[in-house]
Amino acid sequence: MEQQHGPVIDPWGTAVRLEYEKLFQYFGVKPFAELLPRVREAFGEPLHLMRRGVIFGHRDFDKIIEAYKSGERVALVTGFMPSGRFHFGHKMVADQIIYYQRLGFEVFVVIADAEAYAVRKLPREKVIETGLYEYVANLIALGLEKNKHTHIYFQTNYETPYYRLIQMFSRRVTMAEMEAIYGKLEPAKVMAALTQAADILHPQLEHFGGFRHVVVPVGADQDPHLRLARDIADRFEHELGLQRPASTYHRFQTGLDGNKMSSSRPDYTIFLTDPPEVAAKKLMRALTGGRATVEEQRRLGGEPEKCTIYEFYVYHLIMDDKQLMKIYEDCRGGRLLCGEDKRYAAELLTKFLEEHQRRLEKAKDKVLDYVEPPSF
Amino acid sequence: MEQQHGPVIDPWGTAVRLEYEKLFQYFGVKPFAELLPRVREAFGEPLHLMRRGVIFGHRDFDKIIEAYKSGERVALVTGFMPSGRFHFGHKMVADQIIYYQRLGFEVFVVIADAEAYAVRKLPREKVIETGLYEYVANLIALGLEKNKHTHIYFQTNYETPYYRLIQMFSRRVTMAEMEAIYGKLEPAKVMAALTQAADILHPQLEHFGGFRHVVVPVGADQDPHLRLARDIADRFEHELGLQRPASTYHRFQTGLDGNKMSSSRPDYTIFLTDPPEVAAKKLMRALTGGRATVEEQRRLGGEPEKCTIYEFYVYHLIMDDKQLMKIYEDCRGGRLLCGEDKRYAAELLTKFLEEHQRRLEKAKDKVLDYVEPPSF
Repeated sequence: MEQQHGPVIDPWGTAVRLEYEKLFQYFGVKPFAELLPRVREAFGEPLHLMRRGVIFGHRDFDKIIEAYKSGERVALVTGFMPSGRFHFGHKMVADQIIYYQRLGFEVFVVIADAEAYAVRKLPREKVIETGLYEYVANLIALGLEKNKHTHIYFQTNYETPYYRLIQMFSRRVTMAEMEAIYGKLEPAKVMAALTQAADILHPQLEHFGGFRHVVVPVGADQDPHLRLARDIADRFEHELGLQRPASTYHRFQTGLDGNKMSSSRPDYTIFLTDPPEVAAKKLMRALTGGRATVEEQRRLGGEPEKCTIYEFYVYHLIMDDKQLMKIYEDCRGGRLLCGEDKRYAAELLTKFLEEHQRRLEKAKDKVLDYVEPPSF
Repeated sequence: MEQQHGPVIDPWGTAVRLEYEKLFQYFGVKPFAELLPRVREAFGEPLHLMRRGVIFGHRDFDKIIEAYKSGERVALVTGFMPSGRFHFGHKMVADQIIYYQRLGFEVFVVIADAEAYAVRKLPREKVIETGLYEYVANLIALGLEKNKHTHIYFQTNYETPYYRLIQMFSRRVTMAEMEAIYGKLEPAKVMAALTQAADILHPQLEHFGGFRHVVVPVGADQDPHLRLARDIADRFEHELGLQRPASTYHRFQTGLDGNKMSSSRPDYTIFLTDPPEVAAKKLMRALTGGRATVEEQRRLGGEPEKCTIYEFYVYHLIMDDKQLMKIYEDCRGGRLLCGEDKRYAAELLTKFLEEHQRRLEKAKDKVLDYVEPPSF
């Protein structure tokens, strides 16, 4: 792997292939690593998440690169479910949004308030508040800029042709197809699925500014939704001129106990609004790739592949590949022990959060410049 | 029956009760006839369709009467599926719209283009064209006035809070409930059903001008939809302040062969755009309540209850109850034979259509003053 794309650390190389083999083998998702030279040529330095194999797969991203190189319009579409607090798993998506925005991509960010309300059954007011002051505010604090090519919207507060798409899409999708993706469906899920397809495809419409090539960065489990959106695009190619969206696939961020990072597991999840000392404490308790004893670790070395602290470095805390490589090797070689390593990570995390939270306070005042919330 | 509400001819009194007994007995629909004295007191002369038992049932229409008397805001909501040409079955609904409009009711007319496109699978352009130049144009020609309390809209071209309702409603409806009403559901039908609920309930929202009492005049087979809308109103009473809509139920217009009048059976359906001579010819072939021979008819009398010509008088062609009564009795008494009767009906129909079609030509130029069509 390293040979293919320069000074890259991809400790999961093999693991990813096993974990996501199905996507590659049966569903036509292609390895992202193969595109890195072309990414570098077109965009300059790839995002750290690209260089490090966190973004591991894609569909049609080569077309996005070509479109960008030819000066055609390109847009990123992504969304957040305003159902909990903004954590480092979300930050990984935010980093991608901001990377593409700086390259000149147009940006569409949907706050999936309809889905949070109807499927997750959260209260409306809570959902709107969370959308604004957790999701949009953190995006701004992380560096999302406001410009005429940045569109943030709530699913329940957008323009009429978006809703027309939802209505129209329902014609050419069967319940059987949807149930193959979503399982047994209640009306709220039918609505949410059609709405998600409109989220992905509407930026191609004349009403919303005319055709752009669209890329959707998602977690690996989201591919069925992308396949549905691609199928719908095919079925409306003739009638509405829709084209298939491209997509990229990233690994999940692991929770601090080695399972999933999720708002619903706050002890193992670090939120960008956690007081730095609280976040640092969570990190100090995190699962590492350490051995049973110090002696053993000095002898055998640690296992960064299993270490949630190391993952934090890779995803968020260390941008310099050489520094990351050194930590990797020191850990592997038994020279860097977990206690010291955790203290260093906690230091970086504390510094990050302090700065971020200063920006976040200011960002909260700007939220309503970026997005109009629903009136009810 | 006649004693209850003055000089009324209700030839179907008994038949209606048998046919729609279930609605009365199991579903709480009440006989409209019982309200006629109060209708007369509040509104003045009842619409001929009310006087004659064509509108035979209601839910909560007494509340509409009371609200009207108290000077509270009242609105009618109804819709048309732009899937075929406008015929005399549609005119019956138009007559009700215009009756209520003249009383000062606000009027909401939805052109169900989303449903025609997604469920009936008709082409978009055709649906929009039909909505405008069949439905809206005929409504105008029949007397629908344009004022600030008249709202005609396409389902795919309305304001955002209407779509927000559709999204929100999906939260509190189960697939099992919907399938009990609609049978096995495809996504398009789920959308259409939730959209219909929004059509009925949105006039209560602040965004659309604030609360009004709403009445929905429908055919007898539409009650399940009303029950769903009432259930949804109950479930959103706390959150959105929605109240149950009232409804009235009318008999269908019979096709000229005694079966259903429908655009899909043009030989037995009279369209308001039929050339008068074509319409007259259809009428001359219509099923009547005549006997096998002239001799028999003179002796036994005709059976207006079974006569589609007589139904045309009742619904459309004769507004004077005394004149209608005389025809009824002459037919019953064997003094009026079918040939003569048909010629008379054809004469009235021809006259009606000639005048209507003159107005229709002018109405077509005004359509876009009444409603904004979707851009795609």
